Amino acid sequence: MSRRYAILGTGAIGGYYGACLQRAGADVHFLLRSDFDVVQQQGLRIDSPEGNFVLPQVHAYQDVSTMPVCDVVVVALKTTQNHYLPQLLPGVLKQDGVVVLLQNGLNGEPRVAEIVGSDRVIGGLCFICSNKVGSGHIRHLDYKAIALGEYASDYEPKGITKRLEAIAHDFEQAGVPIQLTPDLMQARWRKLLWNIPFNGLSVVLDAFTDAMIGHPAVLTLVEDLMWEVVAIAAAYGRKLTRADIDTMISETEAMQPYRTSMKIDYDSKRPLEVEAIVGCPLQMAQAKGIPAPKLAMLYQQLLFLNHENVGEV
Amino acid sequence: MSRRYAILGTGAIGGYYGACLQRAGADVHFLLRSDFDVVQQQGLRIDSPEGNFVLPQVHAYQDVSTMPVCDVVVVALKTTQNHYLPQLLPGVLKQDGVVVLLQNGLNGEPRVAEIVGSDRVIGGLCFICSNKVGSGHIRHLDYKAIALGEYASDYEPKGITKRLEAIAHDFEQAGVPIQLTPDLMQARWRKLLWNIPFNGLSVVLDAFTDAMIGHPAVLTLVEDLMWEVVAIAAAYGRKLTRADIDTMISETEAMQPYRTSMKIDYDSKRPLEVEAIVGCPLQMAQAKGIPAPKLAMLYQQLLFLNHENVGEV
Repeated sequence: MSRRYAILGTGAIGGYYGACLQRAGADVHFLLRSDFDVVQQQGLRIDSPEGNFVLPQVHAYQDVSTMPVCDVVVVALKTTQNHYLPQLLPGVLKQDGVVVLLQNGLNGEPRVAEIVGSDRVIGGLCFICSNKVGSGHIRHLDYKAIALGEYASDYEPKGITKRLEAIAHDFEQAGVPIQLTPDLMQARWRKLLWNIPFNGLSVVLDAFTDAMIGHPAVLTLVEDLMWEVVAIAAAYGRKLTRADIDTMISETEAMQPYRTSMKIDYDSKRPLEVEAIVGCPLQMAQAKGIPAPKLAMLYQQLLFLNHENVGEV
Repeated sequence: MSRRYAILGTGAIGGYYGACLQRAGADVHFLLRSDFDVVQQQGLRIDSPEGNFVLPQVHAYQDVSTMPVCDVVVVALKTTQNHYLPQLLPGVLKQDGVVVLLQNGLNGEPRVAEIVGSDRVIGGLCFICSNKVGSGHIRHLDYKAIALGEYASDYEPKGITKRLEAIAHDFEQAGVPIQLTPDLMQARWRKLLWNIPFNGLSVVLDAFTDAMIGHPAVLTLVEDLMWEVVAIAAAYGRKLTRADIDTMISETEAMQPYRTSMKIDYDSKRPLEVEAIVGCPLQMAQAKGIPAPKLAMLYQQLLFLNHENVGEV
């Protein structure tokens, strides 16, 4: 692999994929904060049903100014940390390099594009169950595929580029299945179809996925929210269907009982990704006059619970 | 006071009002279940900011069949126990007696009317903060007024009757302010304007009243729910206004931080009054085709939380 990778945010997502890339021979550079000392000394440790592995030595950095410039800068921060991006990205991104934003929700790429230009942004959606269980210690539980797509201004579909294929090839060499999407926003809306009801309600109802879909009233509420998302996506020209909803439900039924990432954040007293996952889609609904009362109520409830949990407004 | 009173359900409501009536000289007979032995031996104990008092001896019963027939049968059970009423009411109600149903929500009186006839039902709404803190031990915290109104089939307004005035007089002799209402359903909808958002959201958000109205998003959600209630009430010919909403909010702002009765039930692992307070109004919305998406979502959430809490569907 000839491309040099930076991983900004070495947690459940960045730590796992970065470690996979390094194990497969890539030149990977990890930015850390609280875990810097441990990772500097002991490297990264990945537990996985596919086999545990340790990388005793990794390139670890505490400060982006000490990092080499990289061809691919993987942003695996929580969306709640995106206000750091103007400080982080310019120094580490090579002139002809590209940012790969591995986040949920809808407001990430435009923010990155403001900093590095809209022709240097790729978006990614991770379908993975993974947790950070200690400093430099990631537990990969299930799945790991990523959907990757080029970003263009206003999320105009941009098709599949050579650059996209090259990065996909690196990840696939590292054992990560990649699905290339010609329309990033379509992929983002489709993932929101799951994230909005399940992430949101898992916090409000203090529940795992199996309990939610196992209760008729909540299953109905999940579908009600999904239909609101379908209507909003349609207003932006992205078609989701009854079949997408059915697939989401049946895949969730087939999953192990799962604590969503938002619930993990909540239980860990970390700020919730309310804006990226719920607030931004709701704003987009309002901008087009699409009724989304249950999405609005979910947003109102999450704002309150987040505030009570971590003191943020 | 010449009327003989039965109190069915000697808890925070029935225990308090029954004790006030007995202290004022009324002939009161209390039905109890788990607290029977203690109350039989030690009577009732009321703590109140207006002065504590003890009734060392009360007429306590474990079985309705041993009770004398009464002129006024006060039902102060939770609505979740209304399925017991067919066994309880016929034996204790005098031929020309009347039932006074002190409950929230909308489905109580029709149920009582099926058992005793619609001409023997009075409905009451209690504006009181009161908790049972031990067997036969009630802590009255604040307020105590009751709104009383005659019930007629389909909640047709029935005006103020002599019978209603007589019972009101007894309660007022006992120090309980009574407001007589010529239209019981109007009074019930007005109380639901408060109960639906505050009872419901207090459970979903694990919050006291002050935290809810202190957070802008939840205050907006409270008002959104109130406007849905206004629309449903209007479909049944009952007019609630912006002024009613403003009054509810400002009275709640003026209250001490308050844990609602539904939250107290939830924390005590008792079944929630979901149907009376939320499900029945929602059904009435659906019957008239009135959109009430946030009320519906609140209902879906409460059904789940009640199920997880006490195992009921």
